[in-house]
Amino acid sequence: MTTDALDPAILERWNNCGYYTLVGMRVERADSDGSLFRIEITPEHTQLYGTAHGGIIAGMLDAAMALALLARMPADEGCATIEMKANFTAPGNPGELTGTGSVIDMGRRIAVARAEIHGPDGRIVASSQGTFMRFAAGGA
Amino acid sequence: MTTDALDPAILERWNNCGYYTLVGMRVERADSDGSLFRIEITPEHTQLYGTAHGGIIAGMLDAAMALALLARMPADEGCATIEMKANFTAPGNPGELTGTGSVIDMGRRIAVARAEIHGPDGRIVASSQGTFMRFAAGGA
Amino acid sequence: MTTDALDPAILERWNNCGYYTLVGMRVERADSDGSLFRIEITPEHTQLYGTAHGGIIAGMLDAAMALALLARMPADEGCATIEMKANFTAPGNPGELTGTGSVIDMGRRIAVARAEIHGPDGRIVASSQGTFMRFAAGGA
Amino acid sequence: MTTDALDPAILERWNNCGYYTLVGMRVERADSDGSLFRIEITPEHTQLYGTAHGGIIAGMLDAAMALALLARMPADEGCATIEMKANFTAPGNPGELTGTGSVIDMGRRIAVARAEIHGPDGRIVASSQGTFMRFAAGGA
Repeated sequence: MTTDALDPAILERWNNCGYYTLVGMRVERADSDGSLFRIEITPEHTQLYGTAHGGIIAGMLDAAMALALLARMPADEGCATIEMKANFTAPGNPGELTGTGSVIDMGRRIAVARAEIHGPDGRIVASSQGTFMRFAAGGA
Repeated sequence: MTTDALDPAILERWNNCGYYTLVGMRVERADSDGSLFRIEITPEHTQLYGTAHGGIIAGMLDAAMALALLARMPADEGCATIEMKANFTAPGNPGELTGTGSVIDMGRRIAVARAEIHGPDGRIVASSQGTFMRFAAGGA
Repeated sequence: MTTDALDPAILERWNNCGYYTLVGMRVERADSDGSLFRIEITPEHTQLYGTAHGGIIAGMLDAAMALALLARMPADEGCATIEMKANFTAPGNPGELTGTGSVIDMGRRIAVARAEIHGPDGRIVASSQGTFMRFAAGGA
Repeated sequence: MTTDALDPAILERWNNCGYYTLVGMRVERADSDGSLFRIEITPEHTQLYGTAHGGIIAGMLDAAMALALLARMPADEGCATIEMKANFTAPGNPGELTGTGSVIDMGRRIAVARAEIHGPDGRIVASSQGTFMRFAAGGA
């Protein structure tokens, strides 16, 4: 079975996992058009220069790519990030960031996705492209 | 003045910044040979599959590259990540991960570094290459 | 002065430069919407497995990104590739490949672009994201 | 059977393939320590600014990574580049460039390698990291 949209119950499992809870990142939607994430940048996300650490930005890009792929894969499959590349085009200032992921190519074993993060003013904060390996996940 | 090793007081400023505190990542050393980081992976770092989220891994790679560069730069300069690329070669299982960063090329405005993360068994968990812009930082 | 489209005379200078001539790659168009390239893959482009070598694919991606940026920059500026990342999603089989580049972010000194290459059947062959440094080029 | 060094006859098959011949790139050695490539940059390799086009540099990086991996794989396997990322740290000026590739991680299906290119003055011209898929190649 191929999903057209990830079930809200599955999104909640992601939103309740350790990392999402720790950093306060949430997936709002993941369907055949892509994924939508939000995070509110606060001082606990920042490095010494006062803006979001690359790990926070890269984490949301990675997640946005992965959930865009999962929404296009059979429900009993998972995917693991083989590698990703992210450009950081503007500082992640305190305030809300929005992340969107989409599929570039869905191969039988390897899938490629991209994601972007925008700030509240619409400026692009980061852009990524990543490679994922599909695997049988037992419904996770 | 070019530093041969970042002052322990500067390392502590990094260790006490928001992101490092939130995720429990620590820089142990940063000098002209490179940087050394540690993190203890716990359930709060994990995604739904039970291993460290890509954001945690990417965050330590980014930091390890940045502090390897800072240790080779004048004390009144900072650097910002323009982009980074990370390969994830093994799962970040619960337990201690060690990150090391080193300089590939120190240009006048643009610098390039790499980093690796190893698990407790010595297996390579991740490997990265990143591009950084140098800037006048007022001692931060 | 910002160009809305690169002058055909400038495109011809690119098409006549050493590398473009050597590999038989041509830029057809570069304007504010992006760039368009074509290459006919022949046996002289192939590796031992009989499909286009990564260098041919990466070269067209790099060029498609660069000319998309140049078309949005003042005519007296050039740009140099700082780094690029390319996914190879399908073999570059003998036949025509089409490359398109577009701008992700045009910073004051650093610019980010992406490009894609498609095969004659429409399948995506490669996808890239790259980082470029702007410089004063004296009209080159 | 795992090779400790690629047979000179296999290296010659690579050196005689279309792309290597077209651009004049040669593999000198590929063994368990890595690979060694050379190319003499001439005007036919250059873009409009007079230095080696990114495609030439990326092509040698890709090849140096691939042959470092092949030298560590069974003789009846091949590998295909899934993706690669290259930093261009200095212009590829006319003259000889030397490329070296090495293995970062040899997984069962996915392998990761890096490569560097140096100019005649020893300066690093480019540095890459790439991801490869292993496949049964029938001795190619």
